Amino acid sequence: MPVAVETVSSVTSFGGEQAVLRHTSEVTGTEMIFSVFVPDHAPDAKLPVVWYLSGLTCTQANVTEKGEFRRACAELGLIFVAPDTSPRGEGVPDDGDGAYDFGLGAGFYVDATQDPFAQHYKMWSYITEELPEIIGDCFPADMDRQSIMGHSMGGHGALTIGLTLPERFKAISAFAPIVAPSQVPWGHKALGGYLGEDRAAWRAHDAVALIEDGARVPALLVDQGEADNFLEEQLKPHLLAEACEKAGIDLTLRMQPGYDHSYYFISTFMEDHLHWHAERLKA
Amino acid sequence: MPVAVETVSSVTSFGGEQAVLRHTSEVTGTEMIFSVFVPDHAPDAKLPVVWYLSGLTCTQANVTEKGEFRRACAELGLIFVAPDTSPRGEGVPDDGDGAYDFGLGAGFYVDATQDPFAQHYKMWSYITEELPEIIGDCFPADMDRQSIMGHSMGGHGALTIGLTLPERFKAISAFAPIVAPSQVPWGHKALGGYLGEDRAAWRAHDAVALIEDGARVPALLVDQGEADNFLEEQLKPHLLAEACEKAGIDLTLRMQPGYDHSYYFISTFMEDHLHWHAERLKA
Repeated sequence: MPVAVETVSSVTSFGGEQAVLRHTSEVTGTEMIFSVFVPDHAPDAKLPVVWYLSGLTCTQANVTEKGEFRRACAELGLIFVAPDTSPRGEGVPDDGDGAYDFGLGAGFYVDATQDPFAQHYKMWSYITEELPEIIGDCFPADMDRQSIMGHSMGGHGALTIGLTLPERFKAISAFAPIVAPSQVPWGHKALGGYLGEDRAAWRAHDAVALIEDGARVPALLVDQGEADNFLEEQLKPHLLAEACEKAGIDLTLRMQPGYDHSYYFISTFMEDHLHWHAERLKA
Repeated sequence: MPVAVETVSSVTSFGGEQAVLRHTSEVTGTEMIFSVFVPDHAPDAKLPVVWYLSGLTCTQANVTEKGEFRRACAELGLIFVAPDTSPRGEGVPDDGDGAYDFGLGAGFYVDATQDPFAQHYKMWSYITEELPEIIGDCFPADMDRQSIMGHSMGGHGALTIGLTLPERFKAISAFAPIVAPSQVPWGHKALGGYLGEDRAAWRAHDAVALIEDGARVPALLVDQGEADNFLEEQLKPHLLAEACEKAGIDLTLRMQPGYDHSYYFISTFMEDHLHWHAERLKA
């Protein structure tokens, strides 16, 4: 492992190793923490990599503790990478009012262009460039077989990154994603704050707009709880369904009666998603 | 549900309902919180009940969030009950130094006889009498089919309660249990503090002593991580193995290389334990 990446903790779980790591990011200019689960594997094996992007307020810890992904990853032979959701630390500007939906814990997976956020809020480049290099260097990862999933804001990240880099990601799925940030309050605040008020710049960070503008992938899987408090105002999965239908993208959108926005929902369907990813990663 | 039991939260997960509940306990004289998972079931069904007793510092929340039990409970049709580990609230005395291993979060599943603990620290009666009545009244529970498991201090609780009430509990298992509190520092402090220095009174709250004194059950299942920091000083599973061998109790003690004392260990083997319980609950 390169000197610059430090192991915070590493424990055995489901026959593999669940590690938390820390490094100084050149991209964000801050220390960054992420977690990686590596299943038991043959000495020379290279395993496919599933990226999981978390939602508002989360760090790498939420899914690592509550996501219930290790059993299926061990069974299917998948490395599971969970990054943080924003830069953090002294000197990293936050939401002026300390709100949960902007700033710390709310990087929205974009490279900010607006002061004072442009210096550190570079989550797009961090997730698509810097962290993949580290994963490829430090773990038994087959970087030709990657897939991406996420929850809420992280579902937005998974969809926009996956749609932008369809050659890299063999599977893309999301739990309760923000599908059209340009059309909802969370997105107005975040994209306006990080990218400025010229909405043309927002389209590269809006899954529905990306599809309207020509982005194509073979298939998407989305689970959405019907008892999710954010469904109507912030998530609006029907907008994704409409865009996919027009574009000929095979979207499986499963509305799940009774489920909310929490990890009690995510963990229920995590194994389904991992099996869906594994089929495409191993095709 | 009786007026006295209030639902703090209830969410859908793995097709069932994961609830957190609150009530005023007559036994402890405090408010108590517990969690219950009820799988999806036929309208008139009564389901077996698995009790899970948590370890030092825990509340009902740790296993509820990190225990990864819902998938197997849903599949096997098991109700899963997770109580708190001690009385709490204003007026409940704590360890004088605020240590983690006595007082709040560390009730050790005994009825204290020593002042100032005797007033509220009645976890034995709470777990064996008051809470079962609530579970039987409020949930579709078949109270003729109960089993018990626990972790660390809760493994101690599961073993001592199960060995004392073998007619009630069809299966007993533990993750990294304190098997002989009379012989280890955690136990000396807790049993001395709650029960006094007359060690005769400790034997009813020490699994190894209970077996030496004649308690008998058909079988026990214990998983123990070999990388557990508490293994040599506090847990000493070989003492249970020796007692079970002499007594003719069929102990399955599985030493698990690489595993520590955390929920990363517990969650790995939770499904094994639930299947082992289900076999005995449905026999």
